[in-house]
Amino acid sequence: MQPTVIAPSILSANFARLGEEVDAVLAAGADWVHFDVMDNHYVPNLTIGPMVCEALRKHGVTAPIDVHLMVEPVDRIVPDFAKAGASIISFHPEASRHVHRTVQLIKSHGCKAGLVLNPGTPVEVLDYVLEELDMVLLMSVNPGFGGQAFIPSTLDKLRRVRERIDRSGREVRLEIDGGVKADNIAEIAAAGADTFVAGSAIFNAADYADVVGRMKAAVSGVRG
Amino acid sequence: MQPTVIAPSILSANFARLGEEVDAVLAAGADWVHFDVMDNHYVPNLTIGPMVCEALRKHGVTAPIDVHLMVEPVDRIVPDFAKAGASIISFHPEASRHVHRTVQLIKSHGCKAGLVLNPGTPVEVLDYVLEELDMVLLMSVNPGFGGQAFIPSTLDKLRRVRERIDRSGREVRLEIDGGVKADNIAEIAAAGADTFVAGSAIFNAADYADVVGRMKAAVSGVRG
Amino acid sequence: MQPTVIAPSILSANFARLGEEVDAVLAAGADWVHFDVMDNHYVPNLTIGPMVCEALRKHGVTAPIDVHLMVEPVDRIVPDFAKAGASIISFHPEASRHVHRTVQLIKSHGCKAGLVLNPGTPVEVLDYVLEELDMVLLMSVNPGFGGQAFIPSTLDKLRRVRERIDRSGREVRLEIDGGVKADNIAEIAAAGADTFVAGSAIFNAADYADVVGRMKAAVSGVRG
Amino acid sequence: MQPTVIAPSILSANFARLGEEVDAVLAAGADWVHFDVMDNHYVPNLTIGPMVCEALRKHGVTAPIDVHLMVEPVDRIVPDFAKAGASIISFHPEASRHVHRTVQLIKSHGCKAGLVLNPGTPVEVLDYVLEELDMVLLMSVNPGFGGQAFIPSTLDKLRRVRERIDRSGREVRLEIDGGVKADNIAEIAAAGADTFVAGSAIFNAADYADVVGRMKAAVSGVRG
Amino acid sequence: MQPTVIAPSILSANFARLGEEVDAVLAAGADWVHFDVMDNHYVPNLTIGPMVCEALRKHGVTAPIDVHLMVEPVDRIVPDFAKAGASIISFHPEASRHVHRTVQLIKSHGCKAGLVLNPGTPVEVLDYVLEELDMVLLMSVNPGFGGQAFIPSTLDKLRRVRERIDRSGREVRLEIDGGVKADNIAEIAAAGADTFVAGSAIFNAADYADVVGRMKAAVSGVRG
Amino acid sequence: MQPTVIAPSILSANFARLGEEVDAVLAAGADWVHFDVMDNHYVPNLTIGPMVCEALRKHGVTAPIDVHLMVEPVDRIVPDFAKAGASIISFHPEASRHVHRTVQLIKSHGCKAGLVLNPGTPVEVLDYVLEELDMVLLMSVNPGFGGQAFIPSTLDKLRRVRERIDRSGREVRLEIDGGVKADNIAEIAAAGADTFVAGSAIFNAADYADVVGRMKAAVSGVRG
Repeated sequence: MQPTVIAPSILSANFARLGEEVDAVLAAGADWVHFDVMDNHYVPNLTIGPMVCEALRKHGVTAPIDVHLMVEPVDRIVPDFAKAGASIISFHPEASRHVHRTVQLIKSHGCKAGLVLNPGTPVEVLDYVLEELDMVLLMSVNPGFGGQAFIPSTLDKLRRVRERIDRSGREVRLEIDGGVKADNIAEIAAAGADTFVAGSAIFNAADYADVVGRMKAAVSGVRG
Repeated sequence: MQPTVIAPSILSANFARLGEEVDAVLAAGADWVHFDVMDNHYVPNLTIGPMVCEALRKHGVTAPIDVHLMVEPVDRIVPDFAKAGASIISFHPEASRHVHRTVQLIKSHGCKAGLVLNPGTPVEVLDYVLEELDMVLLMSVNPGFGGQAFIPSTLDKLRRVRERIDRSGREVRLEIDGGVKADNIAEIAAAGADTFVAGSAIFNAADYADVVGRMKAAVSGVRG
Repeated sequence: MQPTVIAPSILSANFARLGEEVDAVLAAGADWVHFDVMDNHYVPNLTIGPMVCEALRKHGVTAPIDVHLMVEPVDRIVPDFAKAGASIISFHPEASRHVHRTVQLIKSHGCKAGLVLNPGTPVEVLDYVLEELDMVLLMSVNPGFGGQAFIPSTLDKLRRVRERIDRSGREVRLEIDGGVKADNIAEIAAAGADTFVAGSAIFNAADYADVVGRMKAAVSGVRG
Repeated sequence: MQPTVIAPSILSANFARLGEEVDAVLAAGADWVHFDVMDNHYVPNLTIGPMVCEALRKHGVTAPIDVHLMVEPVDRIVPDFAKAGASIISFHPEASRHVHRTVQLIKSHGCKAGLVLNPGTPVEVLDYVLEELDMVLLMSVNPGFGGQAFIPSTLDKLRRVRERIDRSGREVRLEIDGGVKADNIAEIAAAGADTFVAGSAIFNAADYADVVGRMKAAVSGVRG
Repeated sequence: MQPTVIAPSILSANFARLGEEVDAVLAAGADWVHFDVMDNHYVPNLTIGPMVCEALRKHGVTAPIDVHLMVEPVDRIVPDFAKAGASIISFHPEASRHVHRTVQLIKSHGCKAGLVLNPGTPVEVLDYVLEELDMVLLMSVNPGFGGQAFIPSTLDKLRRVRERIDRSGREVRLEIDGGVKADNIAEIAAAGADTFVAGSAIFNAADYADVVGRMKAAVSGVRG
Repeated sequence: MQPTVIAPSILSANFARLGEEVDAVLAAGADWVHFDVMDNHYVPNLTIGPMVCEALRKHGVTAPIDVHLMVEPVDRIVPDFAKAGASIISFHPEASRHVHRTVQLIKSHGCKAGLVLNPGTPVEVLDYVLEELDMVLLMSVNPGFGGQAFIPSTLDKLRRVRERIDRSGREVRLEIDGGVKADNIAEIAAAGADTFVAGSAIFNAADYADVVGRMKAAVSGVRG
């Protein structure tokens, strides 16, 4: 398993030239494309769907596309994203009546499956599904809104989930999303995260390679 | 009021280079940008939201952006699209409990307001709101799915709505969406439409200017 | 059937001393108490429910209480209001999947039944239920918000519904709600209304008897 | 097209020996099996689903199975019933956001399609879908509850829909459901119905053949 | 309390002769009738409702009928099943906003109450309701779909819930549903289950008595 | 922080003279006004909304108004209550998809924020939000219905939540609502509650000051 993954969120990219933006950020050293899907029901915003994902694949993007579904319900759109080229599909347990079944559905379509915990969601939701997951995504801000600061209690939560993952003996990525920047990423990595979503911190920077490089350097200082 | 409007639906454009696509189709003679918003609730698909609309404005698009909301409920997202640069916002009466109020809401945010009738929707829904509308959009296919053929009974429906608009004495556009092509647009215009959405018919063509030109020519043969 | 009914909406009364307010307005000549129920679902506001209705009855109010349900769904709360002392219960057809059945439900609990048409609702909804109704209520503003002006096209709608009622040969009241004042009530009565809801026009007046008296005088000039 | 169809509703049959009951009623001269599906959402009752339909087919029933969906939403369950052996699938327009599309969906699965009008539903819902329908079902009681009497105004509604069907020049059955008995079926047939659902009137009778025979005789006196 | 209960799920029985099937399986040694209710909302399937339950009682079934509600919401249908002869009513905590109240509702109608945990549901949902329950049902497959294999992690979950039940000192049955067969039932009983639902394992067998007998023998080897 | 708070629920007051009632109970020594908001969706009852809260403020009530939202969803109505003069706003985690965000929303409108646990809700919902809360409210009856007795297991739950609050080192009130009376309040206080809602126990008493006084005395015997 790749030790550290930087996954820029394309919500902060320029949608008028998305292919170019994604090419640039991957060339700058980013590992994955983080793809935020909002449906104006689970969160009060509507962003982008499977057709945009498919367009990136047709454009030539071969990096993993990490789809974060902020939609409710979840199941109907899973096959659409699998067909559109998603590599990983993550969803919120609050948005599916049958969490274990949705995980199986994602995997049956050939994608890796992730579960996303909101800032207030207890970690017990992982008790009987962690063994089926490829990734846990902890939100360090509330999803659906931009410009929020990293919620400090997420560091404790990272540590608790890291322990669970280590105890399981399975390869499960631990991703963090919300307020991640070059200057706090080391602390976040120290708490257990290995996969880092960043939006404006990367796409608002003048030099993508510089900020991605600083993020990776900061993490490697922690995780060796 | 402009006699004929061609409004290419960007759902058929390449989302990896949307700004460029929109520039090209407008340069080819298209009048408006038709922007199809689906939320995976009103229709079983999720497309693009306000951030993509805003990106087109920032990219420099000045043509009218004609937003067709296939979302339910409607009201919450109206201000977002107004702020993102929408010129016209249309919605389905089935998707709003308070149709008259939603029309007023759209207009209070400085946009023009349209009502969309599904293939099976009776025209009586216009009885007490036509006097407030800037546009009526008749669907000639069922929304949310691609690749459908023009439903022939829509021609009669166009004639009935055209009569109502003419009787009202108000300037109300009559738009048609679904299966419109260069070879049937004359017949559709003859039935009363003045605003024509076309997706694959334009964006799948090798030469946008050629197909837009043929559409305009066909209509002008009808409407003089 | 009483020729003219003035029904002050207690939404504009002082909720800290509601019994007193209702006593005063009835003493001032008002005929009914109009009781606006909003549930924060059918309309974006939440007002008062059955317990407040029951409190008015216990306080000694014997005038008809005219309950306007802006709630969705409708059926569950009907028996509560019947038990709390409602005389008439009106609801919106958009808020009940089974309009005819809800009318029967209201009547089976010993109340009179009304149907409410929003400003944009076509009158065809009356086609197969008018024969079961005791009242039709036309909204001349959009429900759920205060401070709106009377929508002028409601006058035409009043005339169309008046014709239908007269043709039916049944005793069905025709009520109007929204922007009714002493200075437009004559015109509204002339269009066919016989039951008039007024909120701020009455409760914001210094002298309730004066404004109720002027309303009644204006109507009697029309309806003789 | 068969001039008269008697379609016993198996809701009134004995569910402990349904195969036998259906065999008996068909042997007694009934033409179709009427299959009432309720989901505890569109109506406050839950009855039987596709597995029961399939069991009848496996039991050897070859008569048309006439599925009346009192469910909301409609589309997801349509393929299940088609696969389970349904011949005709009817649904309520209030229960589907896209009435025309649902009709097409039913037909694309190889079934005939019907639309059901509740007692209070205006006939305008047929305006742009009648041309796609194989059957119109008028409810003469409110669906979801047993033991109701035939609503007399349905006779007028039958006449209005019969005119529309005749005008269309297409073969569309006109079915009636609710309170149909041997002693009122002639009057109902005279108003235009050609397909008659009866539940307790048949299954509560001592002799199925006798009551089916009397129904057919009564109708043939009308429709000759 | 009966040490071991075998509860055949009638979803796998022949619905065309259900009374006969149930008689046969009870004669073969089964203890209860397991009755799976799906509403096409909580799970994507619709099965059978209260009328079928009532038909079994009228047919003469006196064994406990164990109703598993896969419906959402829960409360409205509870009295219907109580009246139809249900002995135990179980529901999913995800399907009721007020889990404690629904338990009380079931008991107030004279039935025993059970709570069902999906494969992914944490056991903490039992913390403040176990003291009110008569049964806990653990799903060892995801409800709503047939033909799934027993999920192995359910064995651990059974052990955790068994401990809680034993600690409570109350008589609470521990039921398991999904993929139970004669060849894994011993292991499942060893983990703590005392009540076993089996569908196709029983109804697809040539000899019901043989398979029920083997199941009981396998369990008695474990629980003595 | 005030050691003990008595918060009479105005649901038991006389709604015909609410201002007077509130004045009286505050004069009798009550500390807060407890304001129960039901929307006929989260619970099957509809009570009072922001306009009634605002009327109390205009009437001159200066005591804290403690708003308990039994509504779903929560967020839309929060600003209305803040504007209407609410001091504390509490809500149920089951009624909001984004519990942490709703807490922040309440606080951003200048109110204190509380979370309410139903009798069956596990305390783990507090894990990652307690640090943001001003109050935890434990329901000792199921909300939405009157006349229920205090559920005894709530005493254990109070102790568990008291420990968590004490461990946090933050000032968080622990409120109890349901079946609280002068003769059990000491035991409830001993288990950790410091804020006591009482409805009929106070408003049905002949002498408000007497019962409030006995409650305070009983608590002070415990908490010193």
